[in-house]
Amino acid sequence: MKTAQLTVALVQHRCHKTPEENLETLEKGIRSASREGAKLVLLQELHNYPYFCQTEETRFFDLAEAIPGATTERLARLAKELQLVIVASLFERRAAGVYHNTAAVLDTDGSLAGCYRKMHIPDDPGYHEKFYFTPGDLGFTPIDTSIGRLGVLICWDQWYPEAARLMALAGAELLLYPTAIGWDDRDDEAEQRRQFGAWRTIQQAHAIANGLPVLCCNRTGIESTEDGSASIHFWGGSFVAGPQGEILAEAPHNADHVLVTPLDMRHSEEIRRIWPYFRDRQIDAYGDLTLRFRD
Amino acid sequence: MKTAQLTVALVQHRCHKTPEENLETLEKGIRSASREGAKLVLLQELHNYPYFCQTEETRFFDLAEAIPGATTERLARLAKELQLVIVASLFERRAAGVYHNTAAVLDTDGSLAGCYRKMHIPDDPGYHEKFYFTPGDLGFTPIDTSIGRLGVLICWDQWYPEAARLMALAGAELLLYPTAIGWDDRDDEAEQRRQFGAWRTIQQAHAIANGLPVLCCNRTGIESTEDGSASIHFWGGSFVAGPQGEILAEAPHNADHVLVTPLDMRHSEEIRRIWPYFRDRQIDAYGDLTLRFRD
Repeated sequence: MKTAQLTVALVQHRCHKTPEENLETLEKGIRSASREGAKLVLLQELHNYPYFCQTEETRFFDLAEAIPGATTERLARLAKELQLVIVASLFERRAAGVYHNTAAVLDTDGSLAGCYRKMHIPDDPGYHEKFYFTPGDLGFTPIDTSIGRLGVLICWDQWYPEAARLMALAGAELLLYPTAIGWDDRDDEAEQRRQFGAWRTIQQAHAIANGLPVLCCNRTGIESTEDGSASIHFWGGSFVAGPQGEILAEAPHNADHVLVTPLDMRHSEEIRRIWPYFRDRQIDAYGDLTLRFRD
Repeated sequence: MKTAQLTVALVQHRCHKTPEENLETLEKGIRSASREGAKLVLLQELHNYPYFCQTEETRFFDLAEAIPGATTERLARLAKELQLVIVASLFERRAAGVYHNTAAVLDTDGSLAGCYRKMHIPDDPGYHEKFYFTPGDLGFTPIDTSIGRLGVLICWDQWYPEAARLMALAGAELLLYPTAIGWDDRDDEAEQRRQFGAWRTIQQAHAIANGLPVLCCNRTGIESTEDGSASIHFWGGSFVAGPQGEILAEAPHNADHVLVTPLDMRHSEEIRRIWPYFRDRQIDAYGDLTLRFRD
């Protein structure tokens, strides 16, 4: 990074009904983070709306917005005013019938530094994202900002070591995951614990495998479908991990929280010197990673 | 696997000076595991000898042995007698000047089911493996046995998500890591905790990313070089994780231990149905994984 010390922040919150209410909550969180010294703020996935992917309904495409557009312009003004970088997460309308789940990075000069369009799209009960989101076509490409090169990925990407590796190989200095994941309260407590553990562990492992910090901002709160037939208990638990996977800061499960923590960026360099995984990758034997299955 | 329930065992031990003493310790451990119902026993890395890679000395090549050879024949007889599969770890002499760090799998019929030759070779202070071991040329190829298809990897491989993924894509039903890793007691306790945590976390993540159990057998005990100038405190902590990365069983840091635990192999199938990561791999965007660096 361009500085040895970087203070980062995650804004975890319950989603309100309208973008306006959510943007007000976010702005308060970002201003609070700025007062604590944050120079990089990561927002949670699709922070402007309740998680509409619990059902498949064409009317929800009305929520999609252009990038750049009203939301990125508002956040860009805030980024410039506070002199920090904001990683936002939006439902992008690119054209009729072409919608993406997109992260937009707003730089300290008020510019749109770049976008990442979610590549891995889930489809599971309660998470019908394949209906809404076209897979990204920007690849696993980090975004250069005034504070450094950011490896922005989104939610379901977090389960794929390939995505993290490709970002790190392209020089990403941090990995950032806006996410929206939660429990089905019909699962018992042990299963809920295993799910949360798996989610956190695999992201800590991306930090370890690639020798860099990982930031993950998740939503919190219980959201039900309009007919009340289903709900997701978003598990919060946003966290920041260092390059050994060590948890540096973590938010609670069930409350809005602005999580601010300093990062020592020299630690990544030190770790990569004495645990030199990149040196020893056996790239000649990796060709089959592009196969669906090796059968 | 060929059975829904599989009891597995790891034999973690301090290494004695001679192969004969180590093989006696192992045989006791394997017989004990068998009495507890184990059908698969994983041994630690290079279990026949003290960890000679702390220094670079040509005389240590005398320790290398042929495969098949005396050790695999002895373990094969034991595998047949006890009707279990043994995953052994040897210093293989293939030819003058061609030595490997090799896992050998002995099946219940007393046959050598197959070998895996370590692909990722470390070279760090105290771990001068590049001097001793030629990288493997058998690829990331699972080994078929009477109990199922085993994804055997070795130690430094554990830091590479690519290796775990390639084994899983080739149908491995379990991942198995014989390892020899420890602390430098000059590091402070917090650093030691981070190192052990990283080691365990990244292997738990291989279980999660690939929806299968992971077995890791590490050595224990403090081993010093002959002149006393250096030593490694092998950290034990062998463990078995389920397909959500959940720790099912773990051995202590500083004691010999035969760790036996039952695995419910149906759990992998269930997990892969509801957390279907393989379905959504964006293989068209993974080509750069074969690059050294994307610059």
